[in-house]
Amino acid sequence: MSSTFFTRRTIRKYSDRTVANDLLNNILKAGIRASTTGNMQVYSIIITRDAEMKKKLAPAHFNQSMITNAPVVLTFCADFNRFNKWCRQREAVPGYDNFLSFMTAAIDALLVAQTVCNVAEDEGLGICYLGTTTYNADQIIDILDLPAGVVPVTTVTLGWPAEEPEQVDRLPLAAVVHNEKYQDYTEAMINDFYAEKETRQDTKKFIEENNKKSLAQVFTDVRYKKADNEFFSGKLLEVLKKQGFLGESL
Amino acid sequence: MSSTFFTRRTIRKYSDRTVANDLLNNILKAGIRASTTGNMQVYSIIITRDAEMKKKLAPAHFNQSMITNAPVVLTFCADFNRFNKWCRQREAVPGYDNFLSFMTAAIDALLVAQTVCNVAEDEGLGICYLGTTTYNADQIIDILDLPAGVVPVTTVTLGWPAEEPEQVDRLPLAAVVHNEKYQDYTEAMINDFYAEKETRQDTKKFIEENNKKSLAQVFTDVRYKKADNEFFSGKLLEVLKKQGFLGESL
Repeated sequence: MSSTFFTRRTIRKYSDRTVANDLLNNILKAGIRASTTGNMQVYSIIITRDAEMKKKLAPAHFNQSMITNAPVVLTFCADFNRFNKWCRQREAVPGYDNFLSFMTAAIDALLVAQTVCNVAEDEGLGICYLGTTTYNADQIIDILDLPAGVVPVTTVTLGWPAEEPEQVDRLPLAAVVHNEKYQDYTEAMINDFYAEKETRQDTKKFIEENNKKSLAQVFTDVRYKKADNEFFSGKLLEVLKKQGFLGESL
Repeated sequence: MSSTFFTRRTIRKYSDRTVANDLLNNILKAGIRASTTGNMQVYSIIITRDAEMKKKLAPAHFNQSMITNAPVVLTFCADFNRFNKWCRQREAVPGYDNFLSFMTAAIDALLVAQTVCNVAEDEGLGICYLGTTTYNADQIIDILDLPAGVVPVTTVTLGWPAEEPEQVDRLPLAAVVHNEKYQDYTEAMINDFYAEKETRQDTKKFIEENNKKSLAQVFTDVRYKKADNEFFSGKLLEVLKKQGFLGESL
């Protein structure tokens, strides 16, 4: 088993070394071998290398430094536009203007994205996912000229690592795996599964820096707040509607 | 670059050889090193090995043979239940009952799923994705006892290959990649990008078998029909509501 899978960590700082076009193309070619629903390939990948375009994208990603610092930014999109056009040119009437089709295309896009990341890391490159894509999909659509039928679902920054961060913790495997049926969590199980995470020195420092009583409060009160989540939920549903994925479903 | 990424193909027939627990655990441990939003790990994986459970799941997957034939079935779920419980035990008020949070958790689940598949294939195992999970999430929720906050997003069958199918075609890379901005497709581009797929002998046979005039019609009229997509969209949105992910958003 390739050890990269176990030793990987997210890289947010990249060196000046170029990511050659040939290398990137090879990585993307491996990426599109990922499974895709009915071999429809209902996704698109937008490559950003241009400094001006990165600057334009940055605010949509809350100006996280990776966007402007990385040599390559990849925006992975759910895309039924190409498929719909093909259908219409072949006397076929597409029926993909609904939520299920959006999910199908989003899944397609995410499987390609993760394969691209796995292959890139296998090559020694570093990657970082930007969850902000679903928050500000509307801005990204405008900047990248995405037509109806296309919704960005995630963004990956890519480059040669200029840092060697500590590997972050994960919950024990038993915390996320269930055998045969979902075993709902008791209070004791939650305490047990989160114990290692909560007693780490870096966690304690993180709680202090944020002036909170628990790590959970840093998430609910600082990082991923209810009001923000609801605001961005509304925006994202509007995007789905505008891009043609909530046709007759609601 | 590991050649597995390029030579892989979906495997739907599996030998009787056991997938050892240790091997599966190692694969899952590598899987959970995948990127996750804010290190929240808002996903769960349900392992099905029991023959009776596979039989119960089969109808939800339209009785595709892989479910009962594979030694291991993995259902990947968006899961905020564990995280919410942890928050509540730590005097933190979770605000994740909305569509954005569902997407965050679904993305988390899919990145783990695809890493599990890439690692499994690196070990010589074969995998198959079942897109039916989003169609019949309600049934799967009942069978696997998934509580509120948990929605199955994809299913993977896993085992040692008992077949060596031809690798299926993909569109040329240029068809799915855009530089800097989305270049919308002209009629000529669509013809060009789909030419290889449409002139293949197996495609022609497939169109004939389905009594259709074009490959696109096989998709729109037989495989992924508008009426079905709309029906399953409605069901899936109901599931999101019932599992608590469309709280105040609609």
